[in-house]
Amino acid sequence: MTAESIRSKDLLGVETLDPDEIHLILDTAESMAEIGRREIKKVPALRGRMVVNLFFEASTRTRFSFETAEKWLSADSLNFAVKGTSVEKGESLLDTARNLEAMSPDFLVIRHSSPGVPHFLASRLKTRVINAGDGAHEHPTQALLDALTIRQRKGRFEGLRVAIVGDITHSRVVRSNIWCLTKLGANVTLCAPPTLMPAGIREMGVAATSDFAAALDGADVVMMLRVQIERGGGAGLPSAREYFTHYGLTRERLALARPDAIVMHPGPMNRGVEISSEVADDVERSVILSQVTNGVAVRMAVLYLLSGGSPESWGDGA
Amino acid sequence: MTAESIRSKDLLGVETLDPDEIHLILDTAESMAEIGRREIKKVPALRGRMVVNLFFEASTRTRFSFETAEKWLSADSLNFAVKGTSVEKGESLLDTARNLEAMSPDFLVIRHSSPGVPHFLASRLKTRVINAGDGAHEHPTQALLDALTIRQRKGRFEGLRVAIVGDITHSRVVRSNIWCLTKLGANVTLCAPPTLMPAGIREMGVAATSDFAAALDGADVVMMLRVQIERGGGAGLPSAREYFTHYGLTRERLALARPDAIVMHPGPMNRGVEISSEVADDVERSVILSQVTNGVAVRMAVLYLLSGGSPESWGDGA
Amino acid sequence: MTAESIRSKDLLGVETLDPDEIHLILDTAESMAEIGRREIKKVPALRGRMVVNLFFEASTRTRFSFETAEKWLSADSLNFAVKGTSVEKGESLLDTARNLEAMSPDFLVIRHSSPGVPHFLASRLKTRVINAGDGAHEHPTQALLDALTIRQRKGRFEGLRVAIVGDITHSRVVRSNIWCLTKLGANVTLCAPPTLMPAGIREMGVAATSDFAAALDGADVVMMLRVQIERGGGAGLPSAREYFTHYGLTRERLALARPDAIVMHPGPMNRGVEISSEVADDVERSVILSQVTNGVAVRMAVLYLLSGGSPESWGDGA
Repeated sequence: MTAESIRSKDLLGVETLDPDEIHLILDTAESMAEIGRREIKKVPALRGRMVVNLFFEASTRTRFSFETAEKWLSADSLNFAVKGTSVEKGESLLDTARNLEAMSPDFLVIRHSSPGVPHFLASRLKTRVINAGDGAHEHPTQALLDALTIRQRKGRFEGLRVAIVGDITHSRVVRSNIWCLTKLGANVTLCAPPTLMPAGIREMGVAATSDFAAALDGADVVMMLRVQIERGGGAGLPSAREYFTHYGLTRERLALARPDAIVMHPGPMNRGVEISSEVADDVERSVILSQVTNGVAVRMAVLYLLSGGSPESWGDGA
Repeated sequence: MTAESIRSKDLLGVETLDPDEIHLILDTAESMAEIGRREIKKVPALRGRMVVNLFFEASTRTRFSFETAEKWLSADSLNFAVKGTSVEKGESLLDTARNLEAMSPDFLVIRHSSPGVPHFLASRLKTRVINAGDGAHEHPTQALLDALTIRQRKGRFEGLRVAIVGDITHSRVVRSNIWCLTKLGANVTLCAPPTLMPAGIREMGVAATSDFAAALDGADVVMMLRVQIERGGGAGLPSAREYFTHYGLTRERLALARPDAIVMHPGPMNRGVEISSEVADDVERSVILSQVTNGVAVRMAVLYLLSGGSPESWGDGA
Repeated sequence: MTAESIRSKDLLGVETLDPDEIHLILDTAESMAEIGRREIKKVPALRGRMVVNLFFEASTRTRFSFETAEKWLSADSLNFAVKGTSVEKGESLLDTARNLEAMSPDFLVIRHSSPGVPHFLASRLKTRVINAGDGAHEHPTQALLDALTIRQRKGRFEGLRVAIVGDITHSRVVRSNIWCLTKLGANVTLCAPPTLMPAGIREMGVAATSDFAAALDGADVVMMLRVQIERGGGAGLPSAREYFTHYGLTRERLALARPDAIVMHPGPMNRGVEISSEVADDVERSVILSQVTNGVAVRMAVLYLLSGGSPESWGDGA
């Protein structure tokens, strides 16, 4: 059931992963998570390997999570921000990437506002590419850390009912999660106001509704998405208060889900917009901070497996 | 007389340190300073520990000093700048900090323009917090490096006369120094133009005057503070030239202090505003660059002691 | 013929290097380049040494190249960007540098828009200074990596014909290359439109022409420089299209050079301005990405030699 390795040289999305590859990553991540509970969080697995973190969009948690994963594995990191680079001088992204590649890094971790940029670079570079979020397309390590969190709490995916609620249209998180959860056998229901639900999304094998109560009914997992109210307003979007009234997850609404339903959020949260503080901080139900913790383990696993490591022999203790 | 360890999990200010804890930090820092004189500046004491440097204000010397201390102790560092973070996306500081904490760092080093932010976070996080400057409140590692520098040159604190001169109102350095020096037995006199001297400051156990000559009379240590003339002018502040005429430390004025008085400045200096270049660069009297050197040693000591290290057993030679 | 070490404490320019020092650097770089072809790219040669990378101008490739070199040599790096520093608070560059020096770094790598800044600092600091580009003056590691690339492909410098084409006036790359190539015995011909050719440049021992065909005739090496059309236009500069028509390197023009001529560019390239994509991507003729790869090796060699290492004994395998 579990694969021996990841078949592609890159991790560009969950769409192209097989279920056995997903299980391999989750199993390896469980093993990596143990490192984070040690006093000395450092294994030599990727010593002497270089990871270039190319973030063309603002990020705290994803960038720090990758950097932490790299340091725990003893890799070296180069950090590239949009400003202060030759991108300002008009060099093409491909030329920038080829130049970086000529310095012999082992990995490019890339976040970019345009969908497909990681795929474009991966097809032209020998360096391994990890997609850290491309536009509203995919964010595969987020979906994998979500899956790890769900597996830890629910023990299974088959038949699990997952409601994903919020701005479906602009979310890369939701696309990767749909691929991941449906491949693993879960039943996914999307919920959004009609203006934030893309046409044709049901073709991905999910249910879709604008009725929040219906989406919550019987759910094992409630995953709330960030709503970027600041973009909207004029664009037919409700105000923050109005959004919260209709689609904010409160304790009362959460009671519509199964009694043991867990609450997830990829962050950063808008408290009082898509989620109440009461629910966000509920230590029984909310697994939001576990998601963050699992993010480091999943990224370690991806870096480790793509670099050719096998789950049985990672160089611990050396 | 010397403590065995620091009692708090955090270093938030000098106000809450006991004199024996201060002496423990200074003694440990002396031992750490020796590392900086080696060719290979690296000990394994904090290998596999992660320090997140959260600087919400511009800083060269403090940030570099902490980073250097971290590297010499073999810790890993994550650097967080205001821009390019989810703070831009409206996440609360506490949510940002909780997310960082979920990645299992050992320390948060934080500088913030609002007084009390490190205390607020420290009370809500399990991660150890080091205050690298909070508004005009405290900057404890600066006061500790100042104390180390004074001790190296004067050999004692008891009865020592210290004049602190400049913008008392807006200085976090002065508050931490008042706590530190008075706890150690020194006599502190503050000196500033009336507009830059806060009401009630004498309640901290210090003398206060606007007469520069009186403040200098008999001083063993003259600590000049940065004056941010660029803020002022319209706000009742003098021009740079006028300030220098009345409160600038010149060789002539320094002659009013004791013949072996030393000159200190936390930097960055405004040459020709609060201090003349002649005094700043006087290798006999100015200990300004020694303060910078001692800063690394003090920060190493704080990181080392808070992580549970004992002065007798830091992992040298490994 | 080859020196035993670099005589100066700093690397400020190629102007002050002797040919035997240049050969020493190139020989050491060949040895360092081998590290970049290993799976584990890490030698302990500079463990426990600190390098401060002070970039006062935007840069991708040079900054990343130095950082990569530092990491492969196991040095620690501190990165300093223009913003977020006490430079904003009006501290002089020399005070900033002295403060950094007080933290005991082993190297300052500095890029600055003003010619002579690295020399100014080097003469006042004990810390070793490496010039990573000062205004339109020098960029010595670029010229050295260019020389290494030429030597790898041509096996000699004596009598070699090198055409350097583009914005001669504003290029620091060209000045360092003229010093380097003429010291090594090559014949250098500069080519630029009259508005971009500085008066008196022939006194450096080179030929100069505005006739692109004449410059290419018989050339073994064609080095194209970046043209910053975005600055110009109103300043008597041609448009990008017009520039390409007269001075862009196309396959047809390249046929005027020797059949085995190689094409170089320091990057970042303006495709369709100074060089056609067809030429830039010609795997037989273009050595542009080899230049980038060699950049890491040359910077490792410079850091290693300045720190007192000898080519026979770098600490491999330790």
